Order: sequence, then C-alpha cells, then structure tokens
Amino acid sequence: MGAGDAAEGAARPLGIAAVPGLAVGHAHHPTALTGCTVVLTPRGAVCGVDVRGSAPGTRETDLLAPHNLVEAVHAVVLSGGSAYGLDAATGVMGFLEARGIGLQVGVGVVPIVPGAVLFDLAVGDARIRPDARAGRLAASVAWRAWSAGDHGDDAGEAPPGWCVAGADAEGNVGAGCGATVGKLAGPAHAVKSGLGTAARRLPDGTVVGALVAVNAVGEVVNPATGRVIAGARRPDGGYEDSLDLLIRRVHTVTAGTNTTIAVVAANTSLTKAQANKVAQMAHDGLARSIRPVHTMYDGDTVFALATGGRPVPVDVIGAVAAEVLAEAVVRAVLAATPAGGLPACSTHGLEG
Amino acid sequence: MGAGDAAEGAARPLGIAAVPGLAVGHAHHPTALTGCTVVLTPRGAVCGVDVRGSAPGTRETDLLAPHNLVEAVHAVVLSGGSAYGLDAATGVMGFLEARGIGLQVGVGVVPIVPGAVLFDLAVGDARIRPDARAGRLAASVAWRAWSAGDHGDDAGEAPPGWCVAGADAEGNVGAGCGATVGKLAGPAHAVKSGLGTAARRLPDGTVVGALVAVNAVGEVVNPATGRVIAGARRPDGGYEDSLDLLIRRVHTVTAGTNTTIAVVAANTSLTKAQANKVAQMAHDGLARSIRPVHTMYDGDTVFALATGGRPVPVDVIGAVAAEVLAEAVVRAVLAATPAGGLPACSTHGLEG
Repeated sequence: MGAGDAAEGAARPLGIAAVPGLAVGHAHHPTALTGCTVVLTPRGAVCGVDVRGSAPGTRETDLLAPHNLVEAVHAVVLSGGSAYGLDAATGVMGFLEARGIGLQVGVGVVPIVPGAVLFDLAVGDARIRPDARAGRLAASVAWRAWSAGDHGDDAGEAPPGWCVAGADAEGNVGAGCGATVGKLAGPAHAVKSGLGTAARRLPDGTVVGALVAVNAVGEVVNPATGRVIAGARRPDGGYEDSLDLLIRRVHTVTAGTNTTIAVVAANTSLTKAQANKVAQMAHDGLARSIRPVHTMYDGDTVFALATGGRPVPVDVIGAVAAEVLAEAVVRAVLAATPAGGLPACSTHGLEG
Repeated sequence: MGAGDAAEGAARPLGIAAVPGLAVGHAHHPTALTGCTVVLTPRGAVCGVDVRGSAPGTRETDLLAPHNLVEAVHAVVLSGGSAYGLDAATGVMGFLEARGIGLQVGVGVVPIVPGAVLFDLAVGDARIRPDARAGRLAASVAWRAWSAGDHGDDAGEAPPGWCVAGADAEGNVGAGCGATVGKLAGPAHAVKSGLGTAARRLPDGTVVGALVAVNAVGEVVNPATGRVIAGARRPDGGYEDSLDLLIRRVHTVTAGTNTTIAVVAANTSLTKAQANKVAQMAHDGLARSIRPVHTMYDGDTVFALATGGRPVPVDVIGAVAAEVLAEAVVRAVLAATPAGGLPACSTHGLEG
C-alpha cells in the first residue's frame, strides 16, 4: 500500500489525533501532487461548519445547520482535486457502510460524511484527482489506527502511484499534497505548502486539535511575531507584501483556485449550534495566520467536531481552536517540502 | 452644545472621514461614560453587515441581506447603552426626515438607519444611555461637517452633561466613551478602551476607512508585533494571557456584556452582496487585533458602506478594510484615557 513512504514531520507535540474519538488517515499521489485526508469518527461526532471563503467546494454541509435533522457525522473528508475531489467521500461512505457505521435508516446505514475540497489541479498532473478509491484508502489508514490492527482488507488495492500516511504526517501529505501559498504575484512565485496539525490539552484533560490543508492565495504569517514565513517570493529570498500585491496586481489571480480547509475537534459535548460556533471562532485562527484570507479566490471552510466528553464552555473550545488552527497553518508551511517546481519556505525563506 | 470639549486624538494621518460621501459625529456623556457615533451618508450608501459575536444588539440589519429590497442606507449608528442605545437611531431618523433624506415612500421619506450597540452600563452611570436626543446631537455634528456650515439648528439643545466631538476625535468619545477591554480576569482588572479610526488611500485614489468602538472581553494585540498592548491587568504593569484566563476563569465573565462594533467604508461602487462580503472580510481585522474575539460574550458586528465611485475589486476593499480596522482597534486603546476608575494602557502598560 505504500504506507510509510510519505513525507513525515519532525518529532512534535500533539496533533488532532490526540483528540479521543477520532482517527486520521491520508492518501496522496506524490507526483500528481494531490490527495485526501479523512478524519474518521466511527462512534459519531457532533459537527458544525463555517464557510467563509467565496469559492467553496463542499458536500453535506447543509445538514450541519442546527435546525436540520442529523445529529452525528461519521467522518469528515478534506480533499484536493477541486470539485472532482468531492468523490473521495464516496469511498469513505462505502468503507463505513461495509462496517455498518452510519445513520440507521431501516434498510441499512447511511454514513454521514461532509467534506470540502481545494484546487490543486495546476500543480502536478491535473488528470489525477482523489476519487472514491483514494478516499477508501485514506479511510482504511484511519480505521487501522482506530481499531489498532484491523488492516481494513476490504479497502482494496492502492491505485497505482498512490501512497498513504498516518496521523503524525505533515507537509506534502493527504489533502495538502498539492497545496501552495503566496500566489498574489502569480503561481510561478508561489511557495509549496501542505498539511499541518496541532493540539492543546486543557487542564481538565480535554484536547482541542486542528488539522489544516493550506492552499491560500495569501501569505502565511506567524501570529506570535507578525512576520511573513511563506508568501509571494522575491528573488532575494524574501517575500512580497501580499496586501500591496493585491492592491496592485489582483488581476494576476484566477478566481476559485485557492482554499484553506480545516477540521478542528475536541473530546467534549457540544450541541450542533455550539459546534457551528466553534467552527466560526476557529476561522479567527486563519485570519491571524493568513493574509489576506477569506477572499473571493478562496473557498475557506472549517469543520468542528465534538466527539463527546465532559462539558467545556464553547468559548474555551472556540478560542483554543483558533489558536491551534493558527499553529497548524504555520506547521503546514514549515513541514512542506519542494515539489511541482516550487520551493518550500524551508528552502527559500530568510527565516524558519 | 459643548462641541470641542471632547477628548481629541493626537495629530494623525487618515480616519474614516477621509472617505468621500460620508460624515461623522459623536455625542457622549463623559461622566456617565456612554455615547453614540453616527456615520451619515446623506446621498445614500450601499451597506452590508456581518454579525459574528454571539450576543449582538442590532437594528435594521435584516434589510441588508442581498435579497432584500432596500438598496441604500442614510446613516449607521454605533452606540453604548446596551439595547437601550438602539434608541439613538430614532433621533438620527428624525434629523434626516426633517431634511427630506430617506427612502421615498410617497407620503414622505423613511430614513434607513442600521445600528449596533455595546454594553457600557457597568461603567459610569447605568441610568444614562444614548437616547434619541443623543443620536440627534451626534447627527447634527456629522451634518455640520457634511454641509460645511449648517449648524443643524433643529438638532435641539444638548441634553445636560452631553457633549460632542467631530470626526478626528478618538479615545473616550462617542460609542467608545464607556468602552473597556481585558475583562477575562473580571471587570476590576479591565483597561479603558475607546473609539478609533484609520484609513488608507489606494493608488487610484479610493479611500478605505474604518471606525470602531472596542469593548471586547479579550485583549488587544498589535498584529505587527504579536504583542498585547491592552488586556487583563497584572499588578506589575503587564497583562495576563487572556487565553489562559479564559481556560481557567471563564466563569468570571458575564455573558453579553462586551462587544466590538465597527463601520468600514470606501468610496467605491459595490453591490449589496459585495458590501456584505467586505463586512465579512473586515472581521479578520478584529481577529488579528483582539484575542479572543467573536465569543459568546461579545456582540461583534461590522457594517460596510460603499459610498459610490470607481469600481475596485471586492477583495481589495475587503483586505484593506481588515487592515485599517485592525489599525483602528489599536488606535482606540492607545487613544483612550483613564475613566471609571480604570487606567488606560497609556497609564498602565509596559509599552505603547
């Protein structure tokens, strides 16, 4: 299956997989530069979403409104491949159906699998996109972690060229495999980005985590210092000011070709309305770490999962979610490696 | 009328009043510590809004949805006084009606005056709130600036104890007169905040401005450095980490007693949908300068005005609006002066 040959992040503290009640798996094609990431919640999780980019590609988000029926989701899928990548959720649904996991509907189960996609067709091979087989592959990796040994033998063979990675992977993996940032001077001046994850354990033991694939048109800022760590490259190793670029050269960008998609999660009990509030507050982490963000060119979408546990005030979960999401964004670009003819910030930037 | 006796900011570059097509006036009660601010658009302006705090107090915001009828507003009112302060818009409507400014409805005009309020009842005198007379007073100041000389003699007498200030004023004026920040260790450890304004002129001459009254439960951060400049006070002159306070002591805060309310504006032509997008993007300026923000305790609301002019891409207006709004937030706390038994950051902080 190619497990283990994906780019791995350095030794690190906590990622979203530290949140009890979920498991993570990635599948990606390292030369086509695309992939998908599954956050599996086999016991069900309360889910909310907030879509703040103006060019989103999403699936099963309407049912997350507090007034709608469904109370639990069984996975969330982040995927490359633009709208084609929405197909990855089909494979996750099939994987879950085979295990009897889903909403009981009398004649069987219907797994509830919301998802969002990013545009990575312009790097690598545009003809290869995360499809149902890729989604199934990523789900099988998450399932293996979940069930501690079940190798998910009905996951089928990995499609040619595809490989997988587990929850600790960051950088050019899963939905972040083809991600890039800093495109306001045009795609030739972009920097390779990727996928990042971070988490924080609260004093009561509750863990709040974030996982993000960063494909923003804007630059990435370290909120702790205000400094740009990945953006539109200058020849001298530095970065242009993206706001100035936006004002002067906005027409160099193609609408709908960027997006930051994320999942935040905590092992606490939230209502659907509260989960939507957490997704809303988590976007503040994108605002602090990406500049500009939430543009007409981005489809920025954040899902929030509550896997159940002791109650914690929604503001605590939301505020910490914003912090760990910003941290995950920074990690995503720091962990990325050069690909598709683009350097990573570690090979271009003046600072780490 | 008491004009000119309000706190004035230092010499400064541009504020929202640099945006052609609008005028600003403030009325406030310096001992009751409350007030209101009117942004007048007598020729009409396209308006959008985004409410992201979970304890808002608003008026005439539903009509701003893109699918609703009204295409122009004639003023936006920001006010202290909690929900009582919504009455200030009544006075602004009356002032405009007397001048024939409003939506033509055959039997006269109906001025369209959206507004939002913040909670300042706990400082100064809770029994004194911005009412219709205060709104009319602030409108008369804005009108004087607009008409360059018309003293608005039907504005009536200033109510006892009330005074006014013009567009250049910052700090303890208008809707920011009773504003405070850094309340996560309880109100006794807060810092006086206020009202701030900033603007930026684009190369094509378009001006994007912001005006904000900052009454956040969270701390104010300078996004350029990542440093806290006003928050929950420590005895040594520094500030607590608000996120840590939130995690440990969230129950010390009373829900619904905080809020940051703002107007961003530009002399460009936007659709209502675009104006709503600008309001949405402008909230990123709050995310970058206030931590935490958009909580259940805040009623954070941003209005976006387009006064007409040459078209500019909505992303440019939105991204610059976020920048100038963050700048205005920083200015609001830097310009504030001690009041209500609370220091300002200029008299407490370790840095300016």
